[in-house]
Formats: sequence, C-alpha cells, structure tokens
Amino acid sequence: MKAELISVGTELLLGHTIDTDAAYASRELAAAGVDVLRRFTVGDNPARLEETLRLALSQSDLVILIGGLGPTKDDLTKEIAAAVCGRQLVPHEESRRRIEEYFKGRPLGETQWKQAMLPEGCDVLENNRGTAPGCVFSAPNGSLVALLPGPPSECEPMIRDQLMPYLHRFCGGAIASLMVRTFGIGEGSAAERAADFLEMQNPTVAPYAKESEMFFRVTAKAASEQEAREQCAAVARRLCGRLGSFVYDVNGDGTSQSCLENTVVRLLTEQGKTIAAAESCTGGLIAKRLTDVPGASAVLNMSFVTYSNEAKRRLLGVPEELLERYGAVSEEAARAMAEGVRRAAGSSLGLGVTGIAGPDGGTPEKPVGLVWIALSDGEETWVRRLSAPARFQPREKIRFRAASTALDMARRRLSGLPAEEKPV
Amino acid sequence: MKAELISVGTELLLGHTIDTDAAYASRELAAAGVDVLRRFTVGDNPARLEETLRLALSQSDLVILIGGLGPTKDDLTKEIAAAVCGRQLVPHEESRRRIEEYFKGRPLGETQWKQAMLPEGCDVLENNRGTAPGCVFSAPNGSLVALLPGPPSECEPMIRDQLMPYLHRFCGGAIASLMVRTFGIGEGSAAERAADFLEMQNPTVAPYAKESEMFFRVTAKAASEQEAREQCAAVARRLCGRLGSFVYDVNGDGTSQSCLENTVVRLLTEQGKTIAAAESCTGGLIAKRLTDVPGASAVLNMSFVTYSNEAKRRLLGVPEELLERYGAVSEEAARAMAEGVRRAAGSSLGLGVTGIAGPDGGTPEKPVGLVWIALSDGEETWVRRLSAPARFQPREKIRFRAASTALDMARRRLSGLPAEEKPV
Repeated sequence: MKAELISVGTELLLGHTIDTDAAYASRELAAAGVDVLRRFTVGDNPARLEETLRLALSQSDLVILIGGLGPTKDDLTKEIAAAVCGRQLVPHEESRRRIEEYFKGRPLGETQWKQAMLPEGCDVLENNRGTAPGCVFSAPNGSLVALLPGPPSECEPMIRDQLMPYLHRFCGGAIASLMVRTFGIGEGSAAERAADFLEMQNPTVAPYAKESEMFFRVTAKAASEQEAREQCAAVARRLCGRLGSFVYDVNGDGTSQSCLENTVVRLLTEQGKTIAAAESCTGGLIAKRLTDVPGASAVLNMSFVTYSNEAKRRLLGVPEELLERYGAVSEEAARAMAEGVRRAAGSSLGLGVTGIAGPDGGTPEKPVGLVWIALSDGEETWVRRLSAPARFQPREKIRFRAASTALDMARRRLSGLPAEEKPV
Repeated sequence: MKAELISVGTELLLGHTIDTDAAYASRELAAAGVDVLRRFTVGDNPARLEETLRLALSQSDLVILIGGLGPTKDDLTKEIAAAVCGRQLVPHEESRRRIEEYFKGRPLGETQWKQAMLPEGCDVLENNRGTAPGCVFSAPNGSLVALLPGPPSECEPMIRDQLMPYLHRFCGGAIASLMVRTFGIGEGSAAERAADFLEMQNPTVAPYAKESEMFFRVTAKAASEQEAREQCAAVARRLCGRLGSFVYDVNGDGTSQSCLENTVVRLLTEQGKTIAAAESCTGGLIAKRLTDVPGASAVLNMSFVTYSNEAKRRLLGVPEELLERYGAVSEEAARAMAEGVRRAAGSSLGLGVTGIAGPDGGTPEKPVGLVWIALSDGEETWVRRLSAPARFQPREKIRFRAASTALDMARRRLSGLPAEEKPV
C-alpha cells in the first residue's frame, strides 16, 4: 500500500506550528508496512488543497488529510475532500450528540454543528479527545481518503487506536510492535551497540532519539497477531541484553512519550515505598512528571519547590553555613536537600536537585547547565553532576534532562543497579 | 514573491525526524513577505524529487530545497536540481578549502569532495557550521532555486544570515505581525466575536487554538516595516477591544507557545510581588510552568505539592475537621490551601488547587474532571470550579487546564480584572 499525506493549515505554512502529526502518522504507517511516498503541506486555500488532493489521489492508494476539520470558516478540508470524491456532507447523529455532551449546557454557536457533517457513506473515526470526528471513505478511483483532526492530542490517539486497526484490514496479515526504552546512553553509542539489529528485515528495529532518551521500536509482521507478538518479544529480549541497564522499559505502547516516571511509580508501588523531591532549578518538574502518572498519590504524599535559600533552610533544614560555604548550587547542597526532604516528607526516597538552568546566572566556575542531583534512601546518598556547553542547552532541556536523571537514579536504586553506568 | 519548499530525506518520510527546518524557513519567509504556497516532503528518491521540483518550479518564483547535500550516496538534491535547471556541477575552490580545513589533518574520503561540487554560475551560501555549502541559482523559467543543508544547526543560521539577506534584494515591501493571545474563551466563541476580522485581507487575522487557549495572528504587508507594524497594531487594538479581558498578551513573538506564565511572571515582577502554590491534582505543574520563565526566582521562593491530607494539614495548616467535613476536593479545601500556602510561603499571592484528575477516583458527586482552584491575596479569596465530561478530558488536559486557570486567576487579580468573565 502506498500513501501520501496532506497536512492542512495556514499556521503550518507560516511556520507557527511544527508538524508533529505528519511525523507521527509516518512512523505508524512505516511500522505497518505502508510506504509513505510524499507529504504535502497546504494552507487553508481551497483551490490549492483541491489540486494537491487530486495529485495525491492519482499516485497513491491512501491519502491522509490532517487538519482543517474544526468549527471555523477556514476549516475546509472535509468540504473539499467530499467534493473531490463526489460525496455529499450529511449530518452524523452520534457526532451531534457528542458535541452537545461536550458543551453540555453551554450555548452552542452554529459553527460547532459543522463538525458533525460528514461525507455520506463514510466510516467514522470517533474523536474521544475533542469535537471533530475523523472519517475514511473511498475516492472514485478506489483510493482511500482519511480525514483526521489537527491537534496532536486528538490526532495521535485517533491514528493509533482507530486508523491503524482500520487499515490493517487492507494490509493483510498482522503486525505487532514493542518499544524498548533507554536512558543515559547517547544516540551514537546506542546505535553502535544495536547496529546489527538495525539491519534486520522482519522484525525491523528502528531507533529514535527523543529528549534525552533513546527508543528502539521492534516491529514484526506475521500471519497471526500472536505470532507477530512472539517474534517481537524474542528480538526485544536480545536487544535488551545488548543495551544492558540503560533499558528502563519494554512495552507495547506506541507513543514516543518519555515514561521514566511510569517506571519509577510502578517500582515504588510494587515495593510499597514513597518518594519526595526538593527541587530548585527543576522547579516542580519532577513532581509534575511523577504525578502525570495515574495512581501517583500512593507513592507521593508531598514534594517541595525550594528556589530560595530561605526555603532550603526552613523547609529542608539545609544549614545556613553549608549554603554560605559551598553555595546553593553544589554537591553538598544537593546532598543536604535530598536528605532533608526525605526527613521532612517522611518518605522512603528523597531527591534533591540544584543547578543553573539559565539563560542567566552562570559564572565561569558554575556555568549555565551545571546541575547537582542527589538521591537519599536514608542509608546512602548518591550524587550525580550534569554539565553541558550552554549553547547546546536551552533552559527547557537542562531542566528536562536534570529531572530525567533524577528519576533514573530512583529507578536504578529501586532496581538494585549501580547509580550510574558509563556508556562505552 | 511566491515560494514552495521541498524537504528531502527518507528519515522525514519515516517520521524519525520532525521537520523543524521547514517551519523555521516558513516563519522567516512569512516575516519577509514571501508567501509560502505549499511544502513538499520527499524521500531520497531521484524520480520523485525531480517530479516534485518541476511541479514546484511551475507554480512559484522561489523553490527552496532542504536536505540531501551531504557526502553519502543517497544525497542527490544538488545533482537533480542542477540537471532540472540545465547546469553542470563544477568544483568550488573555496568550499574545497573549507572542507579541508574542517577535517584538518584527518584522512578525507572521496565522498567528502562531492560537497564542494556546485551548479555552475550559482551564488554560494557559506556553511559556517558544517561542510556542505548552500547555493542559489535560477531555473530556465526564471524562478530562483535555493539549496540548503538539512541539519537544523546548519540550516537555520544559513537561512537567517545568508538566504534572507539575499532574498531581500528581490522582495519589495515589508511585513509585520502581532500575536493576540486569549485564555478562557472557546475556539467557537472567539471566532464568532472576531468573525469580521477573519475576513480581512490586509492586515489578515488568523485564529488558532492551542491547548486550552486561543490565539489570533495579525499580519500586515506594507511599503515599509514601520507602516506594516502600525497597521498591525491598529487592528490588534480593535481586536483586543472585541475580545475583552480574555486577552492576556499581545506581542510580536511568532511562536505559538502558551505564555500565560510569562504574563504572570512579568506582572508579579513589575509589581514587586511573589506567588506560591499548594498543588494537589496539578502536582507541581503550576510551579513548573512559572519556573519555565527565566527570572522566575524573583517572584517564587517556594511552592508545595500537597497530595496527601497530611501534607495539607502539616504544611499548609488546613484544619483536619475541614478535610473530614467537606473532603479534600472541595471549595473549602481549595480556599484553605490558598490561604495556608500564602502564609506558609510569606508570599503576596497564594494558589490552592485540588481536584480529581483521573482516570480513577471519581464519584457521582465528585466526578473525574472536577477541580477547585482558589487564589488568596491576603484580603480576599477567589474560588473557581472546573468540570468537564471525563471521556473528553484525559488526565493531562485536566491538569493543564487547571494550571492555566490558576495562572489566569493570578493574571486577572494582578491586572485588577474580575476573577472570571463568562464568554457569551
């Protein structure tokens, strides 16, 4: 099956929005064995959208249009696609009901109903995260046309949970995939360790780097789903052996989201332990990531953002003299924060993070990007130091990597691994 | 001037790489008044690249090809573009010298020299960050063709520092734009209020929805940059009048990132005030968003994640009886948390957030999605209640919207506005 993608939206052509949907769809299609020949990006311009859709239809078995299904006047994807394929737009009752429920009680503008108009005879892809449903229908030449909403929070689950199973009926056979997730090993080192895996044909192993992590997606095609799953599992096991303690998770979740926090919450829950953090430069990001995980309340009772020295002293009992002698960004301060927050929260593990996230506040001795991270379990305190040339590290990345490193230290402690492994 | 962009690379079509270059180029071109009609993404496939280039040349004055200039065999962009435009590739001495210098001393494979071959008679765009130079030349039909390297660290500076100045010679006139950002008004309501603005031709007004916010971009073309800026400002002023107190920011920043937190940090800084949060269901997200803003340390000394009842009692002084009587998710608890954290942190403003982010923990009286948010300034305490049908609201969205609402309450308090305005 050959596919082309059309991303629709003037905000894309103006560069205000980066097109992550098209990349996501491309990955899912590639994993399912569908070749993406070409992608197009067009604005909210009816004539150009029509011309592009006709071109794509003439060359491929599947054309996926993403965006332009919303309530506003410049959302025209459905109208154009229906016209090109000679279909009327008709009201879809279930979608009307969903829109009503979504806005329950609030007054509803006429524009909202437009979202419940769908091409006659289409198969509907439900939108569980928003009001614009997706749909699939065939063009006069027999090619399939799929329409998907633009917001990634709606588009990605619709691709994963609805479009891909729908397409599997057309692709023949079954497919399964597993994601092997690592932290702490660079893209180059990981790819070297896994070099022979990346050459495999079926299952395939595809690497990708995300934030400070590195994932490998193992995908197998087979006659039955179970067979595909077994082939995946066997390759994933061998790959994990190669990647060692850097692997923090293996699962079937197709998202590329980081989930170090899921692993930490799971390990804490299994072991009946709790955690608390004292965050300076990460400013709540560690607590936020832990509480992103449903059920985090069983393992986190409280956590602290201690930006000022006063907060470190008063809430964590970090001695004034220590802060004066070594400074708030120091190994000693991180250690005292981790030990202090563990006592203050009465938790099994305590994390302390202090550093310079920038863009200001760096000095030659303590440059932007320097972060100290400590983990205390009441018996021992581990400390790690991060640094990086500032020009490669915007504030957001410094903070994210520091939070990930803290979470990974907790994972390693809870798994009985050494605090740190050096990638060779 | 009308432009089309072609991004070249199989890694793009496989979704392993997200195309940030094209978005960057689009922003720069839009700012210079060049209309980007369409973008294409093709793999390392000579026939499809040639076909796409011919199509783009037939419709636009400028075609920019990004990627495929490297040393490997599948880097074919230059070869194809030169052939389509009837130009030979000839060695470029300065580029050879640069490549030699770049690899100084290290042995150089034959493939490296390929990068110094450029279309005869082209204008060279120097690459100060890598080995593949860019170039600009004209096609037989008079359209301009520009070739740029793919790695963002090379592509972005080349666009900004070399291609744009080069193009300015060709583009008459100037362009300016402003972003009007709102919170608390839905996409439909906002588009209805601004309906006549969305019809305008110059300046144009384009809406887009992002997370729980709604932005409008006002863009004007005029003879001079100042004139364009003045036209933008005049329309933005009228648009703000229409959108009322939902507008939280107007600026020239072309990104679509949420920045309620920027506005709150700016207002606090201007007024010499501080803020602290007691977060239950948002679990650190408010503190995280505030500390995303450089300079947040001036307005936030400490902040608390108080998930458990014990944490609410011990850290914030929320009375045991209150929690027993009304429950931790209640108006009363939110109020006591906001007042308690203000006292505990000694801050000007205190925020308290308590709710059920799900997916579990909901009851018929207190369903998933119910969130109480309170803001105390020491004299008065405002409270807001959020709710939404659970199936449209994953945990992540419930939390993000609750944090945004809390930040917006702080913005309204600091701006002397009422706590809440109902969108009509």
